[in-house]
Amino acid sequence: MLNYSLVIHGGAGTILKNQITDEQEKAYRKGLEDALNTGYALLDKGGSAVDAVRAAVCSLEDNILFNAGRGSVFAKDGSQEMDASIMNGQNLMAGAVSAVRNIRNPVQLAYAVMTQSQHVMLSGQGAFDFAKLYGIKTEPDEYFFSQFRYDQWKQIQGSDKTALDHNIITGEKKFGTVGAVALDMKGNIAAATSTGGMTNKQFGRVGDSPIIGAGTYANNKTCAISCTGHGEPFIRAVTAYDVSCLMEYKGLSLHDAMHVVVHDKLLKLDGEGGMIGVDAKGNTAMMFNSEGMYRGLKKNSGEIEIAIYK
Amino acid sequence: MLNYSLVIHGGAGTILKNQITDEQEKAYRKGLEDALNTGYALLDKGGSAVDAVRAAVCSLEDNILFNAGRGSVFAKDGSQEMDASIMNGQNLMAGAVSAVRNIRNPVQLAYAVMTQSQHVMLSGQGAFDFAKLYGIKTEPDEYFFSQFRYDQWKQIQGSDKTALDHNIITGEKKFGTVGAVALDMKGNIAAATSTGGMTNKQFGRVGDSPIIGAGTYANNKTCAISCTGHGEPFIRAVTAYDVSCLMEYKGLSLHDAMHVVVHDKLLKLDGEGGMIGVDAKGNTAMMFNSEGMYRGLKKNSGEIEIAIYK
Repeated sequence: MLNYSLVIHGGAGTILKNQITDEQEKAYRKGLEDALNTGYALLDKGGSAVDAVRAAVCSLEDNILFNAGRGSVFAKDGSQEMDASIMNGQNLMAGAVSAVRNIRNPVQLAYAVMTQSQHVMLSGQGAFDFAKLYGIKTEPDEYFFSQFRYDQWKQIQGSDKTALDHNIITGEKKFGTVGAVALDMKGNIAAATSTGGMTNKQFGRVGDSPIIGAGTYANNKTCAISCTGHGEPFIRAVTAYDVSCLMEYKGLSLHDAMHVVVHDKLLKLDGEGGMIGVDAKGNTAMMFNSEGMYRGLKKNSGEIEIAIYK
Repeated sequence: MLNYSLVIHGGAGTILKNQITDEQEKAYRKGLEDALNTGYALLDKGGSAVDAVRAAVCSLEDNILFNAGRGSVFAKDGSQEMDASIMNGQNLMAGAVSAVRNIRNPVQLAYAVMTQSQHVMLSGQGAFDFAKLYGIKTEPDEYFFSQFRYDQWKQIQGSDKTALDHNIITGEKKFGTVGAVALDMKGNIAAATSTGGMTNKQFGRVGDSPIIGAGTYANNKTCAISCTGHGEPFIRAVTAYDVSCLMEYKGLSLHDAMHVVVHDKLLKLDGEGGMIGVDAKGNTAMMFNSEGMYRGLKKNSGEIEIAIYK
């Protein structure tokens, strides 16, 4: 029996039921469901894990509710700079972009870097020039605009404060990142992550999302991982690759390796957030040490789950 | 008996004795010796591993012979963009900068990011703005200019060819990066890496040097590592952290862990280059799978070594 499965996330953080209206919750659940269905349909037709994570992440990037692609947060200078990465567990090929503007789907640009260039990571204007050369879809600033993100930014613009995502007034943290991991019928796995970063971020700050080993990692021998959380501790803990090493070198299961990293290693560095994972045998896990994480999974066993809170 | 030691590298690649004049060899050895003495003097006075690697890397950045700081290679647009990173094994704090211009010592800027900001990685103009705010020394373009690097660039400017460092005409590869790892009297370890990148590089390419986990990693529990080589495979292999994981999870010695990564894992990804390492017990190693690596070490046991070829 061939296993295949898709797991996605739409960010983690202080996500509490009493602060979300029924209507908002319904919209988030619908966004997760659409992304799951889009990616799963490809797997169901025999498509590759790489194509499935790409399609699922594109769907989340296109959804204005999530902090990636359309609806990304505003940096201190009012720009919307995005990061993304993707990794193919079959051959350890990887692609990443950081600080790109006006790219409709940063994950597609990361995929082009992986498949069309000799490089792994491109950044800024250079990454944009590469995108134009390879026909990656661009959009004007207006496309990325959302009133909600703009209001968020206006609350703290001019201050030195940065916010990981919204809920600035209440002092709560939400880590706006989207991601997907998948196992396809051929037994190959892949991971992808995309983000609009931190509201009011400055100094060209780069988080963990475009860093292979930190925000994203995939290796058929072990696991595919996509992270969401406070980027700095995730970089210092080399989070995604740590799960892989605990499986490869210590023999831990996907679940146990993720548990060590999310509930022990990251907490020791004040690393709030979570991750999703899949291995080549079809095991899946969604784990977080924050109040909530937008998440979902769909497996050919018939298992479907969409959840937000603890 | 307290152990302390410093290990440095000035890049790896096709470095053959018959292609280097006696005068050139003498200059390279002198550059390595100066950097070793500068960093070691701090350790000898009871200074920290972080300060020692910082001082050693600054010395190599200031030396026009090495591809980092002064004497960095030219990107496709004629600019000199530099990357650097540093990590403190005592507390897992880290700092990194990518694509910075006109910073005299990029490793000092990475140190300022580690110690003065809430972030780990800053890039481009934003990193420069941060540097100005924190009084990091800048220099005009002329400071970084070297006729040798300029001629190198002119050979391939306008083509789509990129070169990892010089020897373009002979088709040979040299990975211009500098780095240092150290153990101090208190038993703390640290690592730092700095580079001017690839000649004629385009699209804002980022290599492994500013990536925590790939080019640089330090953890008192395991090891401090600085890498030099073809950046893309080093990122995909999460090279520096892999050595740490092989030690922590599989119980390998520093030497054996570095051997697995340099002579097996990296080679499987066509990853040419090398690395230097130190652990908290005072073990040191310098390993490469290329023809040569500019390297040196100095230990309080009296051991001193400066070498270039296999």
